[in-house]
Amino acid sequence: MDKSKIGHHISQQFNSELEEIRTLVLSMGGLVEEQIRNATQALVEGNVELGEAVISRDVKVNKAEVNIDEECTHIIARRQPAATDLRLVIAVIKTITDLERIGDQAERVARMGIRLAEVDRPKNNYHEIQNMGDHVAKMVHGALDAFARMDVESAIEVSKRDNQVDQEYDGLMRQCLTFMMEDPRKITQMLDIMWAARAIERIGDHAKNICEYVIYLVKGKDVRHITIEQIEDELSR
Amino acid sequence: MDKSKIGHHISQQFNSELEEIRTLVLSMGGLVEEQIRNATQALVEGNVELGEAVISRDVKVNKAEVNIDEECTHIIARRQPAATDLRLVIAVIKTITDLERIGDQAERVARMGIRLAEVDRPKNNYHEIQNMGDHVAKMVHGALDAFARMDVESAIEVSKRDNQVDQEYDGLMRQCLTFMMEDPRKITQMLDIMWAARAIERIGDHAKNICEYVIYLVKGKDVRHITIEQIEDELSR
Repeated sequence: MDKSKIGHHISQQFNSELEEIRTLVLSMGGLVEEQIRNATQALVEGNVELGEAVISRDVKVNKAEVNIDEECTHIIARRQPAATDLRLVIAVIKTITDLERIGDQAERVARMGIRLAEVDRPKNNYHEIQNMGDHVAKMVHGALDAFARMDVESAIEVSKRDNQVDQEYDGLMRQCLTFMMEDPRKITQMLDIMWAARAIERIGDHAKNICEYVIYLVKGKDVRHITIEQIEDELSR
Repeated sequence: MDKSKIGHHISQQFNSELEEIRTLVLSMGGLVEEQIRNATQALVEGNVELGEAVISRDVKVNKAEVNIDEECTHIIARRQPAATDLRLVIAVIKTITDLERIGDQAERVARMGIRLAEVDRPKNNYHEIQNMGDHVAKMVHGALDAFARMDVESAIEVSKRDNQVDQEYDGLMRQCLTFMMEDPRKITQMLDIMWAARAIERIGDHAKNICEYVIYLVKGKDVRHITIEQIEDELSR
């Protein structure tokens, strides 16, 4: 066997290892997305059983993180990747940290859902929570889609949607505050809704982080800590 | 020059690079610790100027993260570290993510401090916030100290302190809730205190994460997602 063939063989194996990691990340992402949707549904419908299912399934999210983390360390140690491949592995290590924390936030929403199931539904009937939950679940999906296709443009597009989630969050906070002041007996309930909304809002931030790793991965530019407008400006240069 | 000398030379250079990264992390940690202390002080004393200083200094924390992150990527690409060295670099990448988020939480505390400076001091005179702020700043210091000395035992000890912070947080939450119910005009103020307390509590979680990276670094065991008791049990085997 000549050397170039061996090299080719190793690089093929390496590629399939990278491909496998990418698949693992997408499957972890699918699990997390489902956790967000179920947690939101559990809260909105007052479905305690579904809430409990979300809580107990968080273990699976945690295991996925540890598992992929180990795979990444092995790949770096064994394959000593450079340039783009190395950036991919590091982006994966960061992405799964965010996915794991999204899982934690979904668990928090589920816990609030279980508490809220015991009390009367608020006037707004959890309409805003449902909307926010839908939006961040879609953001996570979009972020992972951009990750899978290494698509900078959709990563930027998904990032931008975080502003909308932030606005919805601010609106809901003001609404809860008004309800509290109108009827102080509702304070505990409103606080639970506020914590749940806060957790959902944080999921949007994590999805945005993942988009930034995608941009970093493709462009090799560290786009964290600058605004989306600055990113677009930088990338168009 | 014989080959072993070159090898020795490279390894010395590598060691000094790793040492430099460790120094950068500790200096970022020092900055973050100061941000926590200043943010807490700004809130407790109603010092708007200090609060604003914390907010504007968060940029320095963000820059430190991006800078160390790049250094780590270069080291992996150039030195292709294996085993312990690779674990160190990955632990650093994770640690600075947590440090950066601690910086964000400190900024949040400072923002709440600026808002709260406009209203009368609450009955508890921010006593609990001061305590919690001190505790988490010490936790961050202890976590980085454990990191610097690769000291698993102090990493475990610092992790354990997170329970105390959680208890203080729960106590303060109940207190704020009572104040709100007693006097609904205090709702907005109490919510601001609750958000600040929440941010401080999250800092404790991040410090705990850093301790877990130290344990991972030294023992090569992934201790996330299990309890401290399980960690001690695992490590004593």
